Amino acid sequence: MTQLTEQKWETKINVAILGATGYTGEEALRILLNHPHVRVTRLFSLEFVGTLVSQAFPRFSKSSELVIEEYKPGVSLRDCDAVIACLPHKASMAILAPLVETGIKVIDLSADFRFASRHTYTAAYGVEHQYPELLEKAVYGLPELYRAQLRDCPLVAAPGCYPTSAILGAAPLLKNHLVRPSGIVIDSKSGVTGAGRSPSSRCHFPECNESVSPYGIGKHRHQPEIEEQLSRLYACPRSRASLVVGQADPARSVLVPAGTARGGEVKVTFAPHLVPMSRGILSTMYLDPDGDVSLEAVRSAYEEMYAGEPFVTVLPPGSYPATSDVTFTNSCHIGITKTREGKIVVASAIDNLQKGASGQAVQCLNVVFGFDETEGLTQA
Amino acid sequence: MTQLTEQKWETKINVAILGATGYTGEEALRILLNHPHVRVTRLFSLEFVGTLVSQAFPRFSKSSELVIEEYKPGVSLRDCDAVIACLPHKASMAILAPLVETGIKVIDLSADFRFASRHTYTAAYGVEHQYPELLEKAVYGLPELYRAQLRDCPLVAAPGCYPTSAILGAAPLLKNHLVRPSGIVIDSKSGVTGAGRSPSSRCHFPECNESVSPYGIGKHRHQPEIEEQLSRLYACPRSRASLVVGQADPARSVLVPAGTARGGEVKVTFAPHLVPMSRGILSTMYLDPDGDVSLEAVRSAYEEMYAGEPFVTVLPPGSYPATSDVTFTNSCHIGITKTREGKIVVASAIDNLQKGASGQAVQCLNVVFGFDETEGLTQA
Amino acid sequence: MTQLTEQKWETKINVAILGATGYTGEEALRILLNHPHVRVTRLFSLEFVGTLVSQAFPRFSKSSELVIEEYKPGVSLRDCDAVIACLPHKASMAILAPLVETGIKVIDLSADFRFASRHTYTAAYGVEHQYPELLEKAVYGLPELYRAQLRDCPLVAAPGCYPTSAILGAAPLLKNHLVRPSGIVIDSKSGVTGAGRSPSSRCHFPECNESVSPYGIGKHRHQPEIEEQLSRLYACPRSRASLVVGQADPARSVLVPAGTARGGEVKVTFAPHLVPMSRGILSTMYLDPDGDVSLEAVRSAYEEMYAGEPFVTVLPPGSYPATSDVTFTNSCHIGITKTREGKIVVASAIDNLQKGASGQAVQCLNVVFGFDETEGLTQA
Amino acid sequence: MTQLTEQKWETKINVAILGATGYTGEEALRILLNHPHVRVTRLFSLEFVGTLVSQAFPRFSKSSELVIEEYKPGVSLRDCDAVIACLPHKASMAILAPLVETGIKVIDLSADFRFASRHTYTAAYGVEHQYPELLEKAVYGLPELYRAQLRDCPLVAAPGCYPTSAILGAAPLLKNHLVRPSGIVIDSKSGVTGAGRSPSSRCHFPECNESVSPYGIGKHRHQPEIEEQLSRLYACPRSRASLVVGQADPARSVLVPAGTARGGEVKVTFAPHLVPMSRGILSTMYLDPDGDVSLEAVRSAYEEMYAGEPFVTVLPPGSYPATSDVTFTNSCHIGITKTREGKIVVASAIDNLQKGASGQAVQCLNVVFGFDETEGLTQA
Repeated sequence: MTQLTEQKWETKINVAILGATGYTGEEALRILLNHPHVRVTRLFSLEFVGTLVSQAFPRFSKSSELVIEEYKPGVSLRDCDAVIACLPHKASMAILAPLVETGIKVIDLSADFRFASRHTYTAAYGVEHQYPELLEKAVYGLPELYRAQLRDCPLVAAPGCYPTSAILGAAPLLKNHLVRPSGIVIDSKSGVTGAGRSPSSRCHFPECNESVSPYGIGKHRHQPEIEEQLSRLYACPRSRASLVVGQADPARSVLVPAGTARGGEVKVTFAPHLVPMSRGILSTMYLDPDGDVSLEAVRSAYEEMYAGEPFVTVLPPGSYPATSDVTFTNSCHIGITKTREGKIVVASAIDNLQKGASGQAVQCLNVVFGFDETEGLTQA
Repeated sequence: MTQLTEQKWETKINVAILGATGYTGEEALRILLNHPHVRVTRLFSLEFVGTLVSQAFPRFSKSSELVIEEYKPGVSLRDCDAVIACLPHKASMAILAPLVETGIKVIDLSADFRFASRHTYTAAYGVEHQYPELLEKAVYGLPELYRAQLRDCPLVAAPGCYPTSAILGAAPLLKNHLVRPSGIVIDSKSGVTGAGRSPSSRCHFPECNESVSPYGIGKHRHQPEIEEQLSRLYACPRSRASLVVGQADPARSVLVPAGTARGGEVKVTFAPHLVPMSRGILSTMYLDPDGDVSLEAVRSAYEEMYAGEPFVTVLPPGSYPATSDVTFTNSCHIGITKTREGKIVVASAIDNLQKGASGQAVQCLNVVFGFDETEGLTQA
Repeated sequence: MTQLTEQKWETKINVAILGATGYTGEEALRILLNHPHVRVTRLFSLEFVGTLVSQAFPRFSKSSELVIEEYKPGVSLRDCDAVIACLPHKASMAILAPLVETGIKVIDLSADFRFASRHTYTAAYGVEHQYPELLEKAVYGLPELYRAQLRDCPLVAAPGCYPTSAILGAAPLLKNHLVRPSGIVIDSKSGVTGAGRSPSSRCHFPECNESVSPYGIGKHRHQPEIEEQLSRLYACPRSRASLVVGQADPARSVLVPAGTARGGEVKVTFAPHLVPMSRGILSTMYLDPDGDVSLEAVRSAYEEMYAGEPFVTVLPPGSYPATSDVTFTNSCHIGITKTREGKIVVASAIDNLQKGASGQAVQCLNVVFGFDETEGLTQA
Repeated sequence: MTQLTEQKWETKINVAILGATGYTGEEALRILLNHPHVRVTRLFSLEFVGTLVSQAFPRFSKSSELVIEEYKPGVSLRDCDAVIACLPHKASMAILAPLVETGIKVIDLSADFRFASRHTYTAAYGVEHQYPELLEKAVYGLPELYRAQLRDCPLVAAPGCYPTSAILGAAPLLKNHLVRPSGIVIDSKSGVTGAGRSPSSRCHFPECNESVSPYGIGKHRHQPEIEEQLSRLYACPRSRASLVVGQADPARSVLVPAGTARGGEVKVTFAPHLVPMSRGILSTMYLDPDGDVSLEAVRSAYEEMYAGEPFVTVLPPGSYPATSDVTFTNSCHIGITKTREGKIVVASAIDNLQKGASGQAVQCLNVVFGFDETEGLTQA
């Protein structure tokens, strides 16, 4: 037994959650209640308004006495330092843009600020972007790629589950030009929370239990997002020779600025599947080596890019990730192989509600405010 | 209400099941108890010997009073017309070879007689084949491809779950040279009965529940089997112009004899995954069109090849199969699309214990004996 | 191989399914498509009107080409011999009453005609019964209790999943006065199809997956139904001495007429639970022996009552049922024990969509029309 | 944002886990890695000896670098302050007795020290107790009942999943003599991790998936344990009038010393069931009120007994617990009703690996060492 006196600076920020009653909002609250530097002070939603969150979700019965508020335009959040927004795509931007103006730090889990170009956004989401000027201010909330830019940034556009699993899984290959930028296949298997909390025929227990099926092959809105990010990585001028991609410096950024990317260069075929489990995403990716690339070179690229990353584990040779090893954590597990036929196959697993949503948001929050990046996210 | 007098020839054959207490043996019994032309007369296993099958599996308590026998070399099966063998790979051949000699029709669910060449067998299974002369007699038990050859054949090597879903899913593309024979990706998702009945850490409920994971990528023994069959289809001399591949004639054969195939021409990357459900397999396949191939041409190839097939359904455009639509049936459902990036994506779903094992065995039995191919297999 | 000429009378009746797109309607179709004496000629629903049933449910793609019709008052079903009604409680009676008038045999899966008294119905369902005169004509569709009365009867009120499992499980005890009629505890565990096909928050996959919970304890509408039936059994004047309750005669009836029952004598505490599986119900019942009752006497009562019953299996001593042994069958498996503390514990398992709904309807149909009771229901 | 300087005493104890590779050992590690006052310094097991725990369980890949050691008699744990023992019943006592001698605090998750009497132990476990003198030193590790006794005690016998859910669920009723001590029915539904990590036929995924079944009714070894504890509560001399059972004082003890209990007075019928989920236990209990007891009086008893308890939530009237609300937490949720027939029905849900095992162990550890009882257990 050790006893010591320690002097600590204790910083606490006040955080509001918008869209607190969806799966990602609930998960954000669950995480933040254990965050040493965060006080969740306000919860907003269109449902359960006026209700104790502990009544809406009995899970919180001993841990939160907050009442769910209705979010109305003009609500002042001046008492908050940051907001985590778990709002629907397309609705999010109109609510968040005025908040960004006020100087509150905004972590957005919707897709509204993820694209560099308003045109790509419109092509994917079918609506005009109402705040294109904010697209430049927003930083894509994947700290493994944009850590330096995220520090103190006003608006974080945190990526969701499919892109996070796919981008982390393929990044070292594209960044190092180890694979060809086209013909990439991403076969993703998602748990059902990925479809949100609204009841639907497709997610009715007896319909999705004991069944696996693909949907929206080649048409999913995450495909252009994955392509944009992988294209930016691929556009990075590093030659294959210089595999030393990362440094221990937490402020490192592995990316060139968005402007220099040749957009759209990387093309993927993306096929999402629904599997009968609540949480977890596994993306299995199939890529063609660009020339003579050994599995060792491939592994080196991964190990170097992710050395020092607190949430990314490159599994030992011959091992593949199981989603159950990452559920309820903010981790991403990656397994890699090269087949006899010459394909590089990468399997990347995350928890869709943590590293694929609210865990990522908290990780970004930590980077924005300069906290230790793992605060609140250390649950194994 | 209609009442009519009908005169019927009633034919009944006696069938023994070897390996009756595994999942495929149990399923074979379940199916055959409702087969109008079959009397299951003997059940053999190494487990539950001397026990009523209805005691081993309470499901049979009102439907079968058979006692499980131990199979010993020299056991006479002269009272049986056919045997369905649900035995382990490598052990199967030594038990079945003497039976084939006696003239009893043998439907083998193991891999032991599936390959045309003893060398491919040895490469995949790591042992010498003890009865290479039988490899020529054996017919690959996929009636959709080998219907004519199966009629009255002495030894059927019925394919299992992964190959059946993959081959049926890709056959029209390769047979009609619509795709390139290399770079094919097969990402398969299997229910846990596919791993058999023996308890294991990997199939322990809490280990595979709420988890999806790949295994043995690029190393699975079904990969060379899939490649051999797809290569034979690809070697077929039909030009792409003549898409009229099937006829209504049930005796039609879409394949050239094994001898003329250029073995190994087709190369696939095969990645099996375990998903938390009991039954069902979905294979999602990604292929590159060979030149300018429209989705319409692709759909025509499927519709023509499978016109009249009692167990294969080509889903309407935009639809993809769910394994739950085929569980407890002998059906294969296939959905097809072509993506913006130019990949042809095919999803093929079967029940791994029916069309992927015992249902297939019964379908083969029907063809061998000249019964209606759907007898015993009409359960929707 | 046996070949013989057989002369057969082939009788075929035409059957319509009302409410064909719910789980019970779909299951009724699935079963009847394999029934040798039934032709399903019409399907009605409010959903998928005008659509091929094989398009609504791809499972039927090779087995049915029926189009779903909208049911409107006045639709003539004169071309049908029987109707299986899978309609909601309370809505069912108004649709079925006119049909009963026309002489078509009606098998109703709703609760509308299950009670002997209109008052009990009103107490349970909160509405006046519109056709109280039909309550006398209707026979409770549990062939194990009412076989004789069901023969040729015009209106069958088939019980659902909870009552079937509970009544079959407790019947021999109450009929033979082996237990006290009060203090009975029925703890039932149901799969999620029991809640129907309409999406709801409670049956949303991530909400009920990985969770078990009770609901409506002591308030479920099946409780008075169970009590009424058990009371009728208990009112039967047999003494405990005469345990020979059943005969091999399929026309036997174990019950005195409804009129002689002292209604409400049996009282149960009924607690339904939702468990994360698609199909199956297990009812565990706890009863107090009335005096000195040995386990042997209890077992005898079960074995005698269910001797010759094609769908009820009394498991051997020490064995308990698993719902997976009865799913996709019309069977009821019953395990019995007596504890050190003197409770009689009975566990009774059925498939909620078969013996708990559509299988039961088909069994009743068979009895009504004089077919072999197991026709169409032989799937192990 | 608040910034303040705080001076803290930081106490850290060193803890070893014995049996670290079973589900409860793994869960204990998972919890303790986030415990601010614990340093897990040693892991012992018979499996994975010499392996990094992060290799055995990839979940720990970024959080623990411990190597699993083999536990051999004589191994010195002098560098540890406490040991959490996740060892099999019967094997545990021989390993732990010498450790208790050394003065290290021992939290035992086995049943070996849970009974007050060696005879009850022998009756339940079929072996002689080798260290009966330790039975007196051991305190039953349910802080809600034995908080005062646990403080600084040398040997904690933490109860497992079934007893914890049952005892917490029934305690206020028996303690306050609101119910009769006999005729109590406990119908428990357990997730599959409750059966441990060793693969078995019963827990093979396809065997327990989509199935619910009872086992060992009236014979489970947890039944005498539940009876002993409930009898001690019932023996407590409090009259029903004085419902003020608990005080805010964390050191309060609601129990008379073991010696004064009239053992065996309370009799239960205990029926455990296996349900297809990984974690969670729900115990539904049926009790007979002793005289005229209102639901309000019942609710008061619960609210008073559990006022101030950090881990027990009494749900509002009409609400019942779902196991999914407590999984991955140390909480117990309790719902209560009284039925028309006069039964009191209580449903009590916990996570079997947390409050039913390792969370409870950590809660006990906190009490033993005087830490805040919720340290390490605050995850919602």
